[in-house]
Amino acid sequence: MSLPISFLSDFGHDDEFVGVVHGVIARVAPETRVIDITHGIARGDIHGGALALTRAVQFMPDGVFLAVVDPGVGTERRAIAARTPVGYFVGPDNGLLAPAVAMVGGADLIVSIEDPRFRLPAAGDTFHGRDVFGPAAAVLASAQAGIEDLGPALPPDSISPLLIPLAEPAGNGGIKATVLWVDRFGNLQFNIAAEDLAGLELKPGDDIALRYEMSNHRIHWGETYGSVEEGEAVFHIDSHGQIALAVRGGSASDDFPIGVGDSVVIGRPDGGNALEIRAVP
Amino acid sequence: MSLPISFLSDFGHDDEFVGVVHGVIARVAPETRVIDITHGIARGDIHGGALALTRAVQFMPDGVFLAVVDPGVGTERRAIAARTPVGYFVGPDNGLLAPAVAMVGGADLIVSIEDPRFRLPAAGDTFHGRDVFGPAAAVLASAQAGIEDLGPALPPDSISPLLIPLAEPAGNGGIKATVLWVDRFGNLQFNIAAEDLAGLELKPGDDIALRYEMSNHRIHWGETYGSVEEGEAVFHIDSHGQIALAVRGGSASDDFPIGVGDSVVIGRPDGGNALEIRAVP
Amino acid sequence: MSLPISFLSDFGHDDEFVGVVHGVIARVAPETRVIDITHGIARGDIHGGALALTRAVQFMPDGVFLAVVDPGVGTERRAIAARTPVGYFVGPDNGLLAPAVAMVGGADLIVSIEDPRFRLPAAGDTFHGRDVFGPAAAVLASAQAGIEDLGPALPPDSISPLLIPLAEPAGNGGIKATVLWVDRFGNLQFNIAAEDLAGLELKPGDDIALRYEMSNHRIHWGETYGSVEEGEAVFHIDSHGQIALAVRGGSASDDFPIGVGDSVVIGRPDGGNALEIRAVP
Repeated sequence: MSLPISFLSDFGHDDEFVGVVHGVIARVAPETRVIDITHGIARGDIHGGALALTRAVQFMPDGVFLAVVDPGVGTERRAIAARTPVGYFVGPDNGLLAPAVAMVGGADLIVSIEDPRFRLPAAGDTFHGRDVFGPAAAVLASAQAGIEDLGPALPPDSISPLLIPLAEPAGNGGIKATVLWVDRFGNLQFNIAAEDLAGLELKPGDDIALRYEMSNHRIHWGETYGSVEEGEAVFHIDSHGQIALAVRGGSASDDFPIGVGDSVVIGRPDGGNALEIRAVP
Repeated sequence: MSLPISFLSDFGHDDEFVGVVHGVIARVAPETRVIDITHGIARGDIHGGALALTRAVQFMPDGVFLAVVDPGVGTERRAIAARTPVGYFVGPDNGLLAPAVAMVGGADLIVSIEDPRFRLPAAGDTFHGRDVFGPAAAVLASAQAGIEDLGPALPPDSISPLLIPLAEPAGNGGIKATVLWVDRFGNLQFNIAAEDLAGLELKPGDDIALRYEMSNHRIHWGETYGSVEEGEAVFHIDSHGQIALAVRGGSASDDFPIGVGDSVVIGRPDGGNALEIRAVP
Repeated sequence: MSLPISFLSDFGHDDEFVGVVHGVIARVAPETRVIDITHGIARGDIHGGALALTRAVQFMPDGVFLAVVDPGVGTERRAIAARTPVGYFVGPDNGLLAPAVAMVGGADLIVSIEDPRFRLPAAGDTFHGRDVFGPAAAVLASAQAGIEDLGPALPPDSISPLLIPLAEPAGNGGIKATVLWVDRFGNLQFNIAAEDLAGLELKPGDDIALRYEMSNHRIHWGETYGSVEEGEAVFHIDSHGQIALAVRGGSASDDFPIGVGDSVVIGRPDGGNALEIRAVP
């Protein structure tokens, strides 16, 4: 009986990278099931990978979480495995794992993966997904070794953190929020939850003015896409409980020039009733 | 022993949507195998998804068919499960399931998925693949519940239909046909089968004039790609028994400005021997 | 107990082709596991597919290798299965299989897949992945038939070869090398290994002038990406033991106008110390 491995990377699907890691795992631990979370993280995008892992982790089966977005492969960054309440996290120690590990309750043991017994003796030093992380995930999943066997323990708080932008108060009960994610459907997810907007006392159907540069769009506060008509924009609670901007039957990302990392101020700028989302240049 | 789930969606591979649905299924029914039909349906393209499901269904193992192309998520559209001779179909009732269900012999029971026991208690109302359809497919596949347990039965003929363009007679034994699908290889599949062209008495090697706007190309009627030379166009029977236009070693879609939804008239316009495919503006 | 099938193709993920082949295999051999190597080979790119298969094969579990890049489907090219020390290779005999088969030690038996018992009786003659190769791989994996049952034996040396460009001496200990692969990360892999550069006596940190047209860039010889600073180019040994050009934290393919099939001369053109990589127009 082997634990499942949930696997996320920035390897894409054009090359054989994902398949080769699956192959290495199958050679080490033939009974282990691998579930691909996604391999569509933009290349080297540690933030994007960390956020996708954090969003996904609660929906995946307990087991091993193998995550590889590793622009620093071949440099001094550590390779780590962390033991948490939902299983093991394996990947580069570059911030990729920290938010998901924190979300599931933190790690009580972190090791530096160094033992050559669990490393594929391959050429080069550029594909640790294949040579280091995949084999480590496979031995943990199949219990061929304990996490302590992979290498020396590190202080539990030594996992490299990732700075995720925090929302800030912006006066008059308003809040400054930042886009964390734009998904395939063009939905813009902000770094705030419904409770962060409590001070604004939003009611379904409320009109909101969305302003950027010289433009001024009228959008609505709604509970679901069905709260607005086809083609209209809705500011709502998304499937992760985060506040998001969507266009019913369309793409907010196509309609509004706001992307990952951009900030807006949400509030009632005149202290009155008029709700506004204003893009911060 | 669990039934396999064959899964189709418009989720793409850039985000973690597909992986999260796999994760939810693995949590509910760890023994269940999920086969991805495709997740490359254009976002919100119910027609494209319905046709891909219909083309694929006969080649997949009997079991559960989970299909999610759901631009109306969060609106009034129903979530349904249908019992058919090849297993269960689960998805939004927006026309996506109807052609495939009809193709396999129709449904003898359709239910509206409503029972909260089989729904993931998650935030938002925008990701029913994760919260409604995935869990329902998993309980059906693993027989943890019967289809009747998911919610109230609907009239068997209440599944929302999908309008697929039909070919029409076009005089002189000719036929008006419409492109249903352009695949990765640039092949154009029409909504007609070989028998629809019987009146034209095509013979392998027959010359056909393909005309659109001011252009006039000479193509051939053939049995396989091998019927023509490299770079030449061939009008032939494709791998689904449908009539298709292809370019050997190339792409008909690149060579001819005809796409999904476009129509042509195929016939002998002068009542004589000259075969013609004429694009309808 | 069934052998795993490792599956590579140019089918992409936009259509249902990959899913349908998985479905056909699951119908023939429900217990068989299929590992996708990649389906992102450029359409019809036999060279790209053959090289990806050759790079991947040593990392996949022994079993069946199903490879379909088949621009000649429906022409006279043969469909073959080959028995090798690591298992069976199944695919079109167009050069796709030859380098990988050679790499694993060659085939002691090759058959032409012809027996209609193991062919899906489907329309058209354009999707042999579904109708011929998938079923053949499934019966071999599950031992429902021996390779001899698939069709008549062919001479073991009759597999169609693939011409892969070889490096050539270029005077003064230099070498002319060709780019075989540009991966997602923009790394350029050449058709030479470290030993091919022995005559140049490279030392880590050595400066190299990379010249093309009127441009002249300074790059470094290094052991890993960590040998250079962020944004700098490094000429190094990649994860397959081949010589490659990379840019740390960037893309060599974006920075330098060199692509698959392009050649360079690597040497000391003045017979002295100055190392140079010169693009061959």
